[in-house]
Amino acid sequence: MAHTLAQKILQRHTDQKIEGTGQIVQCDVSLVLANDITAPLAIKSFRAMGAEKVFDRDKVALVMDHFTPQKDIESAIQVKNTREFAEEQQITHYYEGGNCGVEHALLPELGLVGPGDIVIGADSHTCTYGGLGAFATGLGSTDVAGGMALGETWFKVPPTIRAVFEGKLPEFVGAKDLILALIGKIGVSGALYKALEFAGSTVSELSVEGRMTIANMAIEAGGKCGLFPVDEKTLAYTGARGRNDEVLVADEGAEYERVVNFDVSSMSPQVACPHLPENVHPVEDVKPVKVNQVVIGSCTNGRISDLREAAAVLKGRQVSRHTRTIVLPATPGIWKQALQEGLIETFMDAGCIVGPATCGPCLGGHMGILADGEVAVATTNRNFKGRMGSLESEVYLSNPAVAAASAVAGEIADPRKL
Amino acid sequence: MAHTLAQKILQRHTDQKIEGTGQIVQCDVSLVLANDITAPLAIKSFRAMGAEKVFDRDKVALVMDHFTPQKDIESAIQVKNTREFAEEQQITHYYEGGNCGVEHALLPELGLVGPGDIVIGADSHTCTYGGLGAFATGLGSTDVAGGMALGETWFKVPPTIRAVFEGKLPEFVGAKDLILALIGKIGVSGALYKALEFAGSTVSELSVEGRMTIANMAIEAGGKCGLFPVDEKTLAYTGARGRNDEVLVADEGAEYERVVNFDVSSMSPQVACPHLPENVHPVEDVKPVKVNQVVIGSCTNGRISDLREAAAVLKGRQVSRHTRTIVLPATPGIWKQALQEGLIETFMDAGCIVGPATCGPCLGGHMGILADGEVAVATTNRNFKGRMGSLESEVYLSNPAVAAASAVAGEIADPRKL
Repeated sequence: MAHTLAQKILQRHTDQKIEGTGQIVQCDVSLVLANDITAPLAIKSFRAMGAEKVFDRDKVALVMDHFTPQKDIESAIQVKNTREFAEEQQITHYYEGGNCGVEHALLPELGLVGPGDIVIGADSHTCTYGGLGAFATGLGSTDVAGGMALGETWFKVPPTIRAVFEGKLPEFVGAKDLILALIGKIGVSGALYKALEFAGSTVSELSVEGRMTIANMAIEAGGKCGLFPVDEKTLAYTGARGRNDEVLVADEGAEYERVVNFDVSSMSPQVACPHLPENVHPVEDVKPVKVNQVVIGSCTNGRISDLREAAAVLKGRQVSRHTRTIVLPATPGIWKQALQEGLIETFMDAGCIVGPATCGPCLGGHMGILADGEVAVATTNRNFKGRMGSLESEVYLSNPAVAAASAVAGEIADPRKL
Repeated sequence: MAHTLAQKILQRHTDQKIEGTGQIVQCDVSLVLANDITAPLAIKSFRAMGAEKVFDRDKVALVMDHFTPQKDIESAIQVKNTREFAEEQQITHYYEGGNCGVEHALLPELGLVGPGDIVIGADSHTCTYGGLGAFATGLGSTDVAGGMALGETWFKVPPTIRAVFEGKLPEFVGAKDLILALIGKIGVSGALYKALEFAGSTVSELSVEGRMTIANMAIEAGGKCGLFPVDEKTLAYTGARGRNDEVLVADEGAEYERVVNFDVSSMSPQVACPHLPENVHPVEDVKPVKVNQVVIGSCTNGRISDLREAAAVLKGRQVSRHTRTIVLPATPGIWKQALQEGLIETFMDAGCIVGPATCGPCLGGHMGILADGEVAVATTNRNFKGRMGSLESEVYLSNPAVAAASAVAGEIADPRKL
């Protein structure tokens, strides 16, 4: 039968014949991931199930990115326990400190994930690697422990929603706006246990980084994964990172549960208002609320292209003195690239705070937590109630240009009108 | 009578005639300081005493530097409350976010403190400004609240210990080593409620930044303040920051309780071992312990000259992969200067984490907290048990060159032997 991208990748990793959706298949996995929050739980389960060795020390990645540099004693102990496990198991890909960055930016950068892979991670945004054509999904720490021990796991073959974007993106509109628009349309449960597959001329034109931004937020529509066809752009990206991949697209005639179409040519920058990623409005329709904090970073929008977009808006401007503006390049590599391109200087000159490669405040960790009544505009992925701090705070999600324009204006602002 | 520097400055701020030590004098104050930890307490006291307006909105500085970017909801609320007070009182010198830095580096940089001033701050390292010839001292939040309301406070005129440093400093030996050597000699209570006054040819040769490093740690010997004579170097520094100061030295024949002499010409880099700043040894006598973390920053050693010293050691080298190395330039101004000089690039190339202008882990706040059993080498000022995290962690205090050398070696190391 003709396979969707999801079916096609799963088929590569199982001996069972995939003949539709809903079928349970046992698959080998290409990489198993955990971070400083989830690894300690996974290690505990790993021990509890009597496992002694990880299935392959080169195929487990432990990335200490969430609450680091260590934000408190508890997180320091979590990291220490994980470090000791990594030493015991001689894990090749243990990252902490100066070589560490936000996991979903770091692993693609290092060439550890790519086309056709199955990646499971104890982090919901593991779906990011779908931007490179990997079937990548977040699992609970116990399932990840099983994966660490066995090198395989089971999946129920998901149905696929095909999201087709056509047209040329207007200025200040990019990948983040496409995924926000999609989530706004289908809702936060719209793709529950389904694969999202992206297609259309807009998608072909998108950079690999932009594709990762979109795949990253598949989970915000409930998606099991978000998949992009593997084309020459993908191969250039992964090839430069030492991989030898091949073009990978869905079969002609594959069956989709639903097709959602967008014409992007007249799209505005999109903003997800509190308190759900589906509460999406064009920026011009959002009431200009006073903004206490802007965050530019995260696994969604902390890559070099995102920093360039933000810097283009901030260049020669000053952020509002009422708006602390925190820039967190997602990996040391991105940080250094931004330094070389003069972006770090632009951010500092504009009055931003430039921090290390950490998840920071995105999930309420540290480096920009909100007090009661405070409002943030963030390039991150979730604006659930209390996500970035107080239950009485609010988070608006946007692309980097909108975030930067809002930092300058001190209120939610449209970069087209700055 | 002939006055010490402490007596001379106090005399300028009181109508009472100072005729010795032990006398209680009421003085006007030049500046009152609080930070994000202490300002909320001071504001509470300010309200409780029925005060309505600060004595002078230009002479109160509120610097949100300790747990910022906001590390958790509690600290975010502390900052929010202080921000609202600053708005209500129209405080000129409120600092938060991109314009904020470590208070004791920021206020001198801005020209808000200088020769002959009396500065009181709800922070023990307020004594830093003695490097510029200010009688500056840390007080409790309630006393600071009184100062905020009245513009004056009382002091008991302290006796003075004169510390005389003679000779040329060897390579890799600097201001931090002089103050560590002094604290090692007189102990952490050696100057309890006494002024320290610094003199000698070494002191004359020291940069103003080096003098602030020394004055900063006067409190670690129990000192009420640590005072440097005001010379042409001081005037050049404060003059460049818009002040119009004059030379200020102790009177000939002033009475000192004690004189402590040092010949620095053969001094080694000094290290304060756990768990007291008086537990000082030459670096070559310190057992090479494995180091999990190095911190370069703080109000003691986070200035541009400190970063230059550290970068000189790190240039072309890599920090140990077992040693997370955190560099925190103390102010946005220093951060930008370090950027322009290529120091930030050196740190990133060496594998350091470069963070924002915050106190960070120095007092166990965030950005590098230690787990049980972890060891840090830090350019900070206190190594009390649990100061930087777990009660079972250890902190060694050193100058920036020793810290950088230790980062490279992965254990406490002597930069002269790298």
